[in-house]
Amino acid sequence: MPSTLRWGVVSTGKIANDFVTSMKHVLDPSEHQVIAIASRSLSSAKEFAGRFSIPKVYEGFEGLVNYSEVDVVYIASINTEHFTVSKTALEAGKHVLCEKPMGMNFKLTESLVNLAKSKGVFLMEAIWSRCLPSYSELKSRLESIGEVQYACVEFGRKIKSERISRMDLGGGTVLDLGVYCIQFLNLVFNGEEPTQILTTGSLNTEKTDRNVSSIFKYSDGARVGIISTHSEMNMPCEARVFGSKGSLTLKFPFWASEELECKLESHESGEVIKTPLPVLPKESKYHYNFINSSGLAYEAKHVKECIDKDLKESPLLDHESILQISRHMEKVRKAVGVVYPQDLEA
Amino acid sequence: MPSTLRWGVVSTGKIANDFVTSMKHVLDPSEHQVIAIASRSLSSAKEFAGRFSIPKVYEGFEGLVNYSEVDVVYIASINTEHFTVSKTALEAGKHVLCEKPMGMNFKLTESLVNLAKSKGVFLMEAIWSRCLPSYSELKSRLESIGEVQYACVEFGRKIKSERISRMDLGGGTVLDLGVYCIQFLNLVFNGEEPTQILTTGSLNTEKTDRNVSSIFKYSDGARVGIISTHSEMNMPCEARVFGSKGSLTLKFPFWASEELECKLESHESGEVIKTPLPVLPKESKYHYNFINSSGLAYEAKHVKECIDKDLKESPLLDHESILQISRHMEKVRKAVGVVYPQDLEA
Repeated sequence: MPSTLRWGVVSTGKIANDFVTSMKHVLDPSEHQVIAIASRSLSSAKEFAGRFSIPKVYEGFEGLVNYSEVDVVYIASINTEHFTVSKTALEAGKHVLCEKPMGMNFKLTESLVNLAKSKGVFLMEAIWSRCLPSYSELKSRLESIGEVQYACVEFGRKIKSERISRMDLGGGTVLDLGVYCIQFLNLVFNGEEPTQILTTGSLNTEKTDRNVSSIFKYSDGARVGIISTHSEMNMPCEARVFGSKGSLTLKFPFWASEELECKLESHESGEVIKTPLPVLPKESKYHYNFINSSGLAYEAKHVKECIDKDLKESPLLDHESILQISRHMEKVRKAVGVVYPQDLEA
Repeated sequence: MPSTLRWGVVSTGKIANDFVTSMKHVLDPSEHQVIAIASRSLSSAKEFAGRFSIPKVYEGFEGLVNYSEVDVVYIASINTEHFTVSKTALEAGKHVLCEKPMGMNFKLTESLVNLAKSKGVFLMEAIWSRCLPSYSELKSRLESIGEVQYACVEFGRKIKSERISRMDLGGGTVLDLGVYCIQFLNLVFNGEEPTQILTTGSLNTEKTDRNVSSIFKYSDGARVGIISTHSEMNMPCEARVFGSKGSLTLKFPFWASEELECKLESHESGEVIKTPLPVLPKESKYHYNFINSSGLAYEAKHVKECIDKDLKESPLLDHESILQISRHMEKVRKAVGVVYPQDLEA
């Protein structure tokens, strides 16, 4: 009989809905159970619990992360809350899957990684892309294109929610969109540290980043990665990587892609590898807020596999990668002048 | 009866072949006549003259540019020769169409523009892309995508000729490939001067640029242009521009494109505007060396239209644009450390 991973979910927002929906929709209920839900508003927690038949309801996250029956805490609150909730959960000895950005800056992120290590628990930032079949395909084909020379990722969307620009809620494109671009470079350049990052961009009236573009210089400029974000303009949202023997492209939406295009110079025509994600039946009582959110189930599944193997970090996104991505996010947004209140704290 | 423009062609190289072939293939022979050919090697000049039935043959360019019957000189010699031949031709009072780069640096280019102005003759750098139907389509649709926010052009090819890397022949990717990328930014940002250009790249053993990537910062980072070149790796070679209302893409080969893809947010599906270039009949005694070279005829035709109207500069590529493109080429290649001997001359 398979073991059951008992999840506690912090926050009842859109991504929390999608995460729990994907578990109900895709995963075996004998393997994954959401046993507790927490929200700042008790009524929201109760509504969410009712929707997904979750037995325990908490007002505030403290009770949930200390609830003895919870094995792993999924943190889906707003950006500025991620650190405190993660820290409390890790201190309570819980495994943690925390939405991006885990910390508002590198220092906070690093302290969480160190805390998880000292507590001997599993910690992963919720860069779910890494767990998707399209990303497995990408990784397995990276060698076929020869040495990676160039990559370019553009993530631009007309975002209607005002949260993206608000300073007090940890807005800015780098934390929400850039993280997906930067993790792509981290993946295809295999964790190599760029020798320089050149950045431009502009700020909103709230002084968070409205758009950024950065050149990541590897091997002192012989290899190059480019990222661009935009919160007020649509871009194709593909992630492309080029090597000496061909190219690979994760098609829109690259962060949750279902299609990898491979073009090898040794082959006359390109190949598109399709890895469709599960589609919610029309008669389902559940719904997804975001595109391809059923892919979140792969992340939940991966977390369980790691915990079952007693791993403390994910082989698909190890702590070193989390730290590099966080360091690069900070470099990029600071280069355009974004300073969060958290940067000024001791 | 239409007037005839009498061309003198300097150099018998591959692009000279394609230029004259395009005239023979596409244009009305009563409007365009190549009446003289010059080469450093008399035998090459004779061979070329025989191939295209050109009456006058010169060893060295001096005789040709001073030949009274010649109206306009097309200069297709190697990069390092462009300046001297252009200068001599302009001093002889000839109209000039000179291959890119007209000068090896901004100072030389500027002196040619000034010389042409003082002589009251027509001068254009041979950025033929501007004269193609696909570029007319691009220009006519630019307004439809709203204010331009972002553009990205990548020009990477595995170039077998060693000239691309040789310092003594004016090699490097910026002069040969980057010029096409930079002229695209000049076009879509309508000559606006970037507030900063951030560049990375690497050099060949000969100290010319092997690859470069640059971010052009407009409106202090609120609008961004990105260019990338590579001489040892194939890239898709599309030129893409994004505005608040949609995007336009010149498909491969963007410098001589036959297809413009338009995606407007007000329209559900994209549109591809095809502007096919003439194809040489199979039985032709001529041949093209490069892709879509029949498009060079549009440039020759445009030069005649300008001269017939007594214009001294092209409305499709005015002197200000030539100077801006030259200035940016110099900035980009100097940022990666390329110094030509011409930069060191007084």
